[in-house]
Amino acid sequence: MKVVMDAMGGDFGPRATVEAALQAIEELGVHMILTGREEVLRNELKQYPSVGDALTIVHCSEIIENQDKPSVALRQKKNSSMSVAFQMVRNGEADAIISAGNTGALLAGGLFILGRIKGISRPALAVPIPTPRGISLLIDAGANADCKPQHLLDFARMGRSYMQTMAGIDEPEIRLVNVGIEAEKGNELSKETYPLLEQAHIGFKGNIEARDIPAGVADVIVCDGFTGNIILKLYEGVAGIFGDTLKQELTRNFVRKAGALLIKPGLRDFKKRFDYTEHGGVPFLGVNGLLIKAHGSSNAKALKNAVRQAKISFENQLVPHIVSQLPNASIELEEATHQ
Amino acid sequence: MKVVMDAMGGDFGPRATVEAALQAIEELGVHMILTGREEVLRNELKQYPSVGDALTIVHCSEIIENQDKPSVALRQKKNSSMSVAFQMVRNGEADAIISAGNTGALLAGGLFILGRIKGISRPALAVPIPTPRGISLLIDAGANADCKPQHLLDFARMGRSYMQTMAGIDEPEIRLVNVGIEAEKGNELSKETYPLLEQAHIGFKGNIEARDIPAGVADVIVCDGFTGNIILKLYEGVAGIFGDTLKQELTRNFVRKAGALLIKPGLRDFKKRFDYTEHGGVPFLGVNGLLIKAHGSSNAKALKNAVRQAKISFENQLVPHIVSQLPNASIELEEATHQ
Repeated sequence: MKVVMDAMGGDFGPRATVEAALQAIEELGVHMILTGREEVLRNELKQYPSVGDALTIVHCSEIIENQDKPSVALRQKKNSSMSVAFQMVRNGEADAIISAGNTGALLAGGLFILGRIKGISRPALAVPIPTPRGISLLIDAGANADCKPQHLLDFARMGRSYMQTMAGIDEPEIRLVNVGIEAEKGNELSKETYPLLEQAHIGFKGNIEARDIPAGVADVIVCDGFTGNIILKLYEGVAGIFGDTLKQELTRNFVRKAGALLIKPGLRDFKKRFDYTEHGGVPFLGVNGLLIKAHGSSNAKALKNAVRQAKISFENQLVPHIVSQLPNASIELEEATHQ
Repeated sequence: MKVVMDAMGGDFGPRATVEAALQAIEELGVHMILTGREEVLRNELKQYPSVGDALTIVHCSEIIENQDKPSVALRQKKNSSMSVAFQMVRNGEADAIISAGNTGALLAGGLFILGRIKGISRPALAVPIPTPRGISLLIDAGANADCKPQHLLDFARMGRSYMQTMAGIDEPEIRLVNVGIEAEKGNELSKETYPLLEQAHIGFKGNIEARDIPAGVADVIVCDGFTGNIILKLYEGVAGIFGDTLKQELTRNFVRKAGALLIKPGLRDFKKRFDYTEHGGVPFLGVNGLLIKAHGSSNAKALKNAVRQAKISFENQLVPHIVSQLPNASIELEEATHQ
């Protein structure tokens, strides 16, 4: 399997992407392609003893910056590390693309270079949330701020495919994020979406209130991208504040400090359970190809785990499975409107 | 000051409301009125040595249950503990109403019995969220699932009044919940609300991402009620899971258990910081009177703290202040459309 990584994206840039690529080659047995400024990447590679031939570097003179406008960046910077990576997947030269760069540009590339799967109204970001019971898939986690009921139905279908292929759950439990469990509760969107999900016979089990999300009671959690983004970021924020506050309380006096020392491994295990870097990146489902968005602040470990995720998705045929589960199954993919 | 409490509402019913009323009389020096089944309340009172004359019991034969339809409950059960409590505030026989009962009925009572303040498009629930820096007021926390930009502007004005009168902050920092900090980010609602808030000159400082909410960087956090409900309940849910997970990790072996014993007071202080019962109930702002919604699972302590909140609101003239801060200030209140 060949994975192309935008080597210039993310807060830690080439230092992290090069390290991640080499780790992925060794641990996962994939072929890695890095797109970016060749001299910068070669320079990073110098610190490693031997590289081998499972790494390909493709020189790109341009970089899409975080402040670049997504809609124009890909069109104007055709030789950027991100654009070239997209072209390679589109042309079949790579099986998956990973980037920690400009999110808007990445989603635009998915839509306009890879193209949308026929039958999916809106591709969506699917985030595996760690819970005490395993993984809950949150979809859409931020790609579509305004949604219609049909979009949420498509999110549910894609989330179902993801949990079937990636987690091996035959009949994933699907729930709709809402302010109450009753069908008639919620805003206009959720009230109209509820019967659609019910009629689709895809394992819809009703609404889920936000307070029950962290417990992991649902396999797939469906919502619009605005709500999904709020959920994901609040999860992150509360986790951070809890860690900080706990630390404050536990260093207040000598006895507590002594106790804190004894429970240090416990706190570490605790932190690990909520650490997104353990789980890699976020797939953009509904586009014609494997696209994994890594967090902007991804370190080498997180990026390597994103490659692992791409590999598992590829081996489990995630994209073909999504296509096969559509009501009017069609393996003919929509022609990408390349801009 | 006279506070009327719906003595039959909430998961713990009269046991909790009676205890809370007696504590409030003693600690806060208020006059308490309890509405509910007299024989039940008198029976609860038996376990207390002396009651004094600062407690009034008003017998009501009916109870609005949680499964009752809010829109019809108040009309059909005119002699319910909640309806009578509302009438007493409307008739000036009490200065504030507190209930842990059916939320929908409580909001309906606020709108139709007390009436909406003229100039406020939609009353809203305002939840003080505990943060390491003090309190952030989340408004609307769930009363209005679908909102328009004008509603959010009114929420911002009311939140500002609340923080000015209740927290003594002259110029509260107001932020809009959004998926990014840039003005052009978000869904249609947030994109249209941003310029409205900016032009109102009420201390609007831009968007806030959900991950920054727990840190307490804003005094007033404005959003539609659907989003607010998600934020509030997720906050609760993550806190619960963190507590459980931490406990699991800290009881895994002897050394950790020993350490956990030493840090027990630290963990207790930690938990207290995120305990909503410390902060009482949730005011429903924008109606013609003081209405405090207590959590359904409120214990006596939480209910007593709700009375404290009502008292502080009354002494600080929260409702008159909201009226005075409206762009077309008017002390004439809209005639309640009593149903």
